[in-house]
Amino acid sequence: MNEKIPVAVLGSTGSVGQRFVQLVSDHPWFELVAVTGSQHRVGKAYAETCHWILPEPMPEAVREMKVVATTPETVDAKLVFSALPSAVARDVEPVFASAGIGVCTNAGAYRRETDVPVLLPEVNPDHIRLIERQRAGRGWSGFIATNPNCTSTGMTIALKALQDAFGLDTVMAVSLQATSGAGYPGVPSLDIVDNVIPYIAGEEDKVEWEPRKMLGSLNSGEVEPADFRISAHTNRVAVSDGHIVCLTVKLRRTATPEEAKEALASYPLPDVCRDLPFAPVPVIAVREEPSRPQPRLDRMTGKGMTTVVGRIRPDSVFDLRLIVLSHNTIRGAAGGSLFNAELLVREGYL
Amino acid sequence: MNEKIPVAVLGSTGSVGQRFVQLVSDHPWFELVAVTGSQHRVGKAYAETCHWILPEPMPEAVREMKVVATTPETVDAKLVFSALPSAVARDVEPVFASAGIGVCTNAGAYRRETDVPVLLPEVNPDHIRLIERQRAGRGWSGFIATNPNCTSTGMTIALKALQDAFGLDTVMAVSLQATSGAGYPGVPSLDIVDNVIPYIAGEEDKVEWEPRKMLGSLNSGEVEPADFRISAHTNRVAVSDGHIVCLTVKLRRTATPEEAKEALASYPLPDVCRDLPFAPVPVIAVREEPSRPQPRLDRMTGKGMTTVVGRIRPDSVFDLRLIVLSHNTIRGAAGGSLFNAELLVREGYL
Amino acid sequence: MNEKIPVAVLGSTGSVGQRFVQLVSDHPWFELVAVTGSQHRVGKAYAETCHWILPEPMPEAVREMKVVATTPETVDAKLVFSALPSAVARDVEPVFASAGIGVCTNAGAYRRETDVPVLLPEVNPDHIRLIERQRAGRGWSGFIATNPNCTSTGMTIALKALQDAFGLDTVMAVSLQATSGAGYPGVPSLDIVDNVIPYIAGEEDKVEWEPRKMLGSLNSGEVEPADFRISAHTNRVAVSDGHIVCLTVKLRRTATPEEAKEALASYPLPDVCRDLPFAPVPVIAVREEPSRPQPRLDRMTGKGMTTVVGRIRPDSVFDLRLIVLSHNTIRGAAGGSLFNAELLVREGYL
Amino acid sequence: MNEKIPVAVLGSTGSVGQRFVQLVSDHPWFELVAVTGSQHRVGKAYAETCHWILPEPMPEAVREMKVVATTPETVDAKLVFSALPSAVARDVEPVFASAGIGVCTNAGAYRRETDVPVLLPEVNPDHIRLIERQRAGRGWSGFIATNPNCTSTGMTIALKALQDAFGLDTVMAVSLQATSGAGYPGVPSLDIVDNVIPYIAGEEDKVEWEPRKMLGSLNSGEVEPADFRISAHTNRVAVSDGHIVCLTVKLRRTATPEEAKEALASYPLPDVCRDLPFAPVPVIAVREEPSRPQPRLDRMTGKGMTTVVGRIRPDSVFDLRLIVLSHNTIRGAAGGSLFNAELLVREGYL
Repeated sequence: MNEKIPVAVLGSTGSVGQRFVQLVSDHPWFELVAVTGSQHRVGKAYAETCHWILPEPMPEAVREMKVVATTPETVDAKLVFSALPSAVARDVEPVFASAGIGVCTNAGAYRRETDVPVLLPEVNPDHIRLIERQRAGRGWSGFIATNPNCTSTGMTIALKALQDAFGLDTVMAVSLQATSGAGYPGVPSLDIVDNVIPYIAGEEDKVEWEPRKMLGSLNSGEVEPADFRISAHTNRVAVSDGHIVCLTVKLRRTATPEEAKEALASYPLPDVCRDLPFAPVPVIAVREEPSRPQPRLDRMTGKGMTTVVGRIRPDSVFDLRLIVLSHNTIRGAAGGSLFNAELLVREGYL
Repeated sequence: MNEKIPVAVLGSTGSVGQRFVQLVSDHPWFELVAVTGSQHRVGKAYAETCHWILPEPMPEAVREMKVVATTPETVDAKLVFSALPSAVARDVEPVFASAGIGVCTNAGAYRRETDVPVLLPEVNPDHIRLIERQRAGRGWSGFIATNPNCTSTGMTIALKALQDAFGLDTVMAVSLQATSGAGYPGVPSLDIVDNVIPYIAGEEDKVEWEPRKMLGSLNSGEVEPADFRISAHTNRVAVSDGHIVCLTVKLRRTATPEEAKEALASYPLPDVCRDLPFAPVPVIAVREEPSRPQPRLDRMTGKGMTTVVGRIRPDSVFDLRLIVLSHNTIRGAAGGSLFNAELLVREGYL
Repeated sequence: MNEKIPVAVLGSTGSVGQRFVQLVSDHPWFELVAVTGSQHRVGKAYAETCHWILPEPMPEAVREMKVVATTPETVDAKLVFSALPSAVARDVEPVFASAGIGVCTNAGAYRRETDVPVLLPEVNPDHIRLIERQRAGRGWSGFIATNPNCTSTGMTIALKALQDAFGLDTVMAVSLQATSGAGYPGVPSLDIVDNVIPYIAGEEDKVEWEPRKMLGSLNSGEVEPADFRISAHTNRVAVSDGHIVCLTVKLRRTATPEEAKEALASYPLPDVCRDLPFAPVPVIAVREEPSRPQPRLDRMTGKGMTTVVGRIRPDSVFDLRLIVLSHNTIRGAAGGSLFNAELLVREGYL
Repeated sequence: MNEKIPVAVLGSTGSVGQRFVQLVSDHPWFELVAVTGSQHRVGKAYAETCHWILPEPMPEAVREMKVVATTPETVDAKLVFSALPSAVARDVEPVFASAGIGVCTNAGAYRRETDVPVLLPEVNPDHIRLIERQRAGRGWSGFIATNPNCTSTGMTIALKALQDAFGLDTVMAVSLQATSGAGYPGVPSLDIVDNVIPYIAGEEDKVEWEPRKMLGSLNSGEVEPADFRISAHTNRVAVSDGHIVCLTVKLRRTATPEEAKEALASYPLPDVCRDLPFAPVPVIAVREEPSRPQPRLDRMTGKGMTTVVGRIRPDSVFDLRLIVLSHNTIRGAAGGSLFNAELLVREGYL
């Protein structure tokens, strides 16, 4: 890498957009050259139009950058990170891809498409090859690569380690999700102070199919979803960042908690991801204390990229119970997309 | 009822003890005549020694009452409500029972004994008859009757309606529990502000066997636990009162969500409970909105005695998913014990 | 009162509007006959269009009521409660007043008008007579009567007791305000979980002049603002309901904390308010414990209408320091407006 | 600095003790060689006996360190950091000082002694010379140097800038304090979820005299307290870290908000503190946004050592109002003590 790759953030002023801007600004490979926003923000300085809500300060370099419209013409970059709302992403992302631009997106719009990878480099780096079919089929010189939903992310990484070691039969998942997952302004405080909301629109559906696609195998250019069942409850709790998922798992081959611990703790970073700047170190951290992981204490493990697992114990109905924690706006959104982009660059897709 | 029954609260200064004092003070049948406490409180006025933490004001009548030691000699009552810690309850409650006093207890010490009922009048009023065996076997003229753990309470009431209508095969339960369940001082604020604690010592075990005992059948003086399996995860969240339980249920006979809704909403109060002052009206309230029940909005349904159920929907692995909410210090503790006492009075056990 | 007075709630679906609907529904004098809302809600059943956010259930009688437009023609009532946003209230409330309808409003639009009372029946019931000037000057047969800002409310009631007893020279006020004061959706949870926002737009200004108007004297049809100085800081904290104000007060005649306590605790309800359904009992409750009042424990004192005062202590710069708590959506908004309406009915303004 | 200075942490397992351990472990000058604790912890590995509550991981080097008793004999260090409770500190700290050990303490026990500095290197580095009198008078070869209370810290730094530029006449301070200031377990969650506690035992007294000592001048070996008045209200809110103080200030020479902003933003680090590892950069950060500083967003400014000021605006009674934020366990406790130690090392007191 002699020269940094110019990149842009689409939908840069929302909560995930801000996280992209913050993480990209320090990136050793990428240089932020454009930020896009809604029509009423276009032409304004980023610092002026963006209500910054991250604890980390707004990067100096972006403060005076003028927000531009979300079109390939206004964005001089070969790689863009998309934090667009799904409905907008559906129309806009293909325009970028067909203009020869690589789109690494947090939006859910294209995750279900059979020629679009839902990518976690720790889990399914080979799915990147769907892009070849995508390009052939759609006539694009760019591409769309998605990261999964923030709740699917951590649990899929943990499930991958179990799948490799023991096979998966059935997964029951119940989430306790942070409010940052709903964006900004997102969840009204009257709904969450001294409260739980046992419902997140559309979330359970995503949690029930995304892991199966990611854990599926790529055969002759198609992903065959992994053959196990998932059931999910998703809940919102009064936490700022960090999603907890309570997993109850039936394996193909039974395993003791100790064996599962070993499988999780030793789950390796795939060779192809070695030394990528956003590769989690370790991929999975296993906590031994009875009451960990906890969002406030553990979400920043591995700079927010590590999946933290704890309370691995036997189950009275299935085989195992465990708790998974993942930082929802870093590993589960912007950081995940950056990690995807790094893999795509290394593999020559740019 | 011409005259009120004199009652005492054992362990009256803790958080459940306070709830007993508050609820008993308005009770149409009972009159609070004594409050007990630890040695260092004995002789002090209740208002002076008790750090009152309920939003409802301390009842006037108790303010000047002198705290007495927790012995039958110092308590002139035929019925006592016990909010003692389990380890203390184990030693003290039998002393009261053998002195001819009825003990309605929130402590877990005797719940596993085969001659002690774990009682929810909506669910297993017939289990009250275990007391006959208890008296015969132990030579007591009083008795010990327990209410279940606060998390077991709501879910067992909902499960009873499903058991009656469709039979139960397997139950997966994941709780999101209020901090009041841990007493006072209980959960440190540093552990719960912007956080979740995915662990409550001893709780999962209770949630996995108590419902089976309560839903079991009484045959020749013994309870045969109901024949279904339960698995539980229990979590603490930043809520003051009101436990949420996410249930995923496999039934003996499959049922549509509509049929389940009907079974839950129409679950009747047993005849023997009719018009008891603490009988919940309705027993189960079914909410139709997608995001209900919520602790802050729904915990006081039916004066905190009603079990609130919502999000009844099909499951992709088992048959049904639903959300149960129950007020943990009213229905799940002091209010539950009062309701038990009412049933015991009506049935002539006093 | 033989027959109930028909009333309507303007802007009935927002958070204050809901509180009006809830409190009016149980009112012994008033009968809710209409609820108004924005154009896109008109014609829909209240239960269908309103996202109800109160812990108290939506009153049965309003569920099927069709929302109507906010015009005198669509509302068949002689008295309306307005929860309109200020900008809308400015245009709409005079239309009602000139149509002969009494408007009791929580909106701030007309509070500064010299012929409009900012009314707290405990404090300045005589200011009601401004309405005569209002009617004469504007040619209205109806009227507009306002209640103060939710933060001004509690502190003004406490200051009134001190003013009467000792005179006021200077007041320093720092508030810790609940999020319900910002309406719904209002404060985003990401702004308030594990956080404080030391700013509320426009609030400090209101807190600095409203008390002086209310504590001023009515001379020949004009209110001369009370002659003392106020300085305010206003903060938002993670509380659902109940505003705390820390007051530091310089008096005209010095007073000991004991004297101040006596003046506050014995502050009488004005004769003209006696037995009004929403009259607070007591007007001011003085707590003796060092750490009270607290929002969660004390906000519902006197059904949410009582002003709770504590920590009355000497000050090293001025004379006294004290803490004031008031329920911001009951005493400080809808309940306050209802109390005003009761006074207006009794005094023959309807 | 060729070799690191061996240091110990007294009272190492509490919340401030942990912060000391965490911050010292990365320190370029100091090497942690001993951790002390209560009798029941002595001999146990730190990782085994300490319930670690910081989001930052426990430093590897300390995990296996055996906890020792809090005596000079068991601690082979010339410098110790004390996180002892005040009552213990009163007895133990002099034992260390008389054994020739420098004690940098967060405990309040000796702050009022006329020969003990309450030290903020940004503010009163010259007060360090009190130690000469302390040694002469008490016959110690070591010393005790204290940092102020966590709430006094940030406000005193801001006040120093105003004092230098305009002189101080009167200060009204109202705090909104984080729960970590109360240690662990500290504030029960039932006291703070959906609540404010308008009282912190002993705190207002400290806030009213500590700033005057620190802002006083050292004349012939004695500190003459600065001649201005302070009045304080102190409140606990549901924030994990970061104390907000609302200040209303009367100056000797009046100043516009712009002049005050300039004085605060340009307040220099004293020369003697230049390049000390824990010196804040900048000393004071001035935020221009209307709603800043906020604890969650701004507490980590300058690695938690910078004092953040905002909302500098005129006051209607005094001259200025402003908001001050300071990280209470870093700048206001362990980090402050480390900064003091650095100054003491540089000035040759070790």
